Amino acid sequence: MIYLDHAAATPVSKKVFEASGPYFLEEFFNPSSPYLPAKKVSKEYEEAKNVIARAIGAKGSDLVITAGATEANNLAMAGVSGGVLYLTTEHDSVRRVAEQYGGEAIKVLPSGLIDMEDLRGKITDETELISVSLVNNEIGVIQPIAEIGALVREVRMDRLRRGVKRQILLHSDASQALNLLDVNVARLGVDLLTLNAAKVYGPKGVGALYVSHEVRLNPLTVGGGQENGLRSGTENVPGVIGFAKAVSLAKEHLNGNRKKYAEFKKVFLDELQGYELPVKKHMLDNFVVLCYNGIDAERLVFLLEEKGVYVATGAACAASKGVRSHVLAAIGLTDSEIAGSLRISFGETNTKEQIIEAARIINEVVRAERERVAHE
Amino acid sequence: MIYLDHAAATPVSKKVFEASGPYFLEEFFNPSSPYLPAKKVSKEYEEAKNVIARAIGAKGSDLVITAGATEANNLAMAGVSGGVLYLTTEHDSVRRVAEQYGGEAIKVLPSGLIDMEDLRGKITDETELISVSLVNNEIGVIQPIAEIGALVREVRMDRLRRGVKRQILLHSDASQALNLLDVNVARLGVDLLTLNAAKVYGPKGVGALYVSHEVRLNPLTVGGGQENGLRSGTENVPGVIGFAKAVSLAKEHLNGNRKKYAEFKKVFLDELQGYELPVKKHMLDNFVVLCYNGIDAERLVFLLEEKGVYVATGAACAASKGVRSHVLAAIGLTDSEIAGSLRISFGETNTKEQIIEAARIINEVVRAERERVAHE
Repeated sequence: MIYLDHAAATPVSKKVFEASGPYFLEEFFNPSSPYLPAKKVSKEYEEAKNVIARAIGAKGSDLVITAGATEANNLAMAGVSGGVLYLTTEHDSVRRVAEQYGGEAIKVLPSGLIDMEDLRGKITDETELISVSLVNNEIGVIQPIAEIGALVREVRMDRLRRGVKRQILLHSDASQALNLLDVNVARLGVDLLTLNAAKVYGPKGVGALYVSHEVRLNPLTVGGGQENGLRSGTENVPGVIGFAKAVSLAKEHLNGNRKKYAEFKKVFLDELQGYELPVKKHMLDNFVVLCYNGIDAERLVFLLEEKGVYVATGAACAASKGVRSHVLAAIGLTDSEIAGSLRISFGETNTKEQIIEAARIINEVVRAERERVAHE
Repeated sequence: MIYLDHAAATPVSKKVFEASGPYFLEEFFNPSSPYLPAKKVSKEYEEAKNVIARAIGAKGSDLVITAGATEANNLAMAGVSGGVLYLTTEHDSVRRVAEQYGGEAIKVLPSGLIDMEDLRGKITDETELISVSLVNNEIGVIQPIAEIGALVREVRMDRLRRGVKRQILLHSDASQALNLLDVNVARLGVDLLTLNAAKVYGPKGVGALYVSHEVRLNPLTVGGGQENGLRSGTENVPGVIGFAKAVSLAKEHLNGNRKKYAEFKKVFLDELQGYELPVKKHMLDNFVVLCYNGIDAERLVFLLEEKGVYVATGAACAASKGVRSHVLAAIGLTDSEIAGSLRISFGETNTKEQIIEAARIINEVVRAERERVAHE
């Protein structure tokens, strides 16, 4: 099996599983309970939050632990009254929330990068929040968040000067980023940042929203008042312990992984024999988008699976509903190109040999499929 | 260690941990992905939901998986526009939500049971939702949900006759119930029911809301459209697999556990030498409330812990904030009685010998503390 869909799901790494194990079985106490073993668990939970937070240059108290990136993205906007701008290529968990607040989409360039001119033109005194993911989940394009952050600071200063009281916040979904980017909230200039354990070899059902001190959010769920009142419910201790381990491992292997995936990408494209990529630059090294115009990518997924290669046609949750990728449409691909597009995402389950073998199999399957279509 | 706080947290049972393990490590695929291994995971996830649902007489498609009981309780009310009635002894995750909708509290009798007359008197044509937990989390009192369900049906028929269009729904938080009660949504007559994996030896961070076909809810989080659009986010596969296993085990051992905990309670109270309980009847057999008037229960928790016995003064999340138990106040205990109250909850970590030993230690500690207070 050659699994090339790490953008959809990553396995929990052995070390993460081992780290969280005791918190299921022995250290199971409710962190709010009054006796020492529970207080110890509470302390370890907070320390795990610190580990996650430090990896992005923040403090544990800046994080609200959620059930994943979707909840974090929903929570990020739970304080605004309107005036949301979002990148048109965002994941549904940003788009659908933004739409609830009458959000307006910002264009992307054919490179997949944000159209900064379009953004500048759309910011008004009503704008309260801008949401742009750090790395796009379908095409792996890395957005210039620091540049957007600088623009937001400019707007903030200008509002201050003119006595406009409305806040303007920058939110970024960094779900896909931690494996290969050194994410730092201050350098990025974000007020809100989404993290997702399940994309960095941590457990499913755990995520976090970084919330800068100045931001006031409304909770999505109320109750026992956990997470500083922003997200009630008994803490998912094993999940957060695992999340912290996963983030530590990502941080530890960051440079090694960058080199590894850069090499994977090079040998993969070399083997694909002069194949022309629709998205080339500003991409995370573990993403490749292949576009076979005139071929049905859903058939390719099926044919490749028969040969033990697992790839995607786009975001898993969108693909399962059979809708055309709004991301590929936004970067200007035709319907026929979109229908022939595959998303490849390398990860820890892969070896260099697998990558070469996968490219060989893709070449072979595409060639056969082209012939079949030609003779139809 | 004698742990007597299973109402606050239960350890994950070994069998649950073993059942979910492979879904962290090998069966890690995104259930929305298009290839067969992912479709297999998706099928197993749906089957796990069916197992949980069947345990309460429902179908998997009636369940919305959440991050726990708190989210389920919040979601249960996410469709109403007002007119919420809730039992005054409810957990904060019901009370705080109900308050957001201008909820009105229903009284309890000194027995801890709902005051049905008060409920009848408070139902108006504006009432949209009534929320009463099946088992109270502090005193273990089992509420007559089926009787409330019958009343709700009467109100519904009456509204139908009179052409009043407003819906009336019954919600019950059954978090504490599954270990010892045979819960069935039709028999109870509930439209919405909350379940919690972490109280039945399943993992933390997983719960479910049963939603009857006729009920239309508004999602708390939007995005990829999972859980029939009612709760977006990649499915927590290992969590739900574990939850299903935990529910199966609870069901399997229901009768055995009832006998076991009834015996535990008997030997415990025998050993406590004629101790008079503030709440006696209609209680789940694994709950005991001890009330030592004139003694500081928080000190007792500390002294008992020194002797290896772990008990609570009330709900963990309320106790951690140092607030007086609203539940014990509602059943008519004085401030001094409340300050001297302990919650004991037996569970799978206990043996009969432990229970006798714990009662002996409690007697001893209380006696010493009474003497200390008398000589102060």
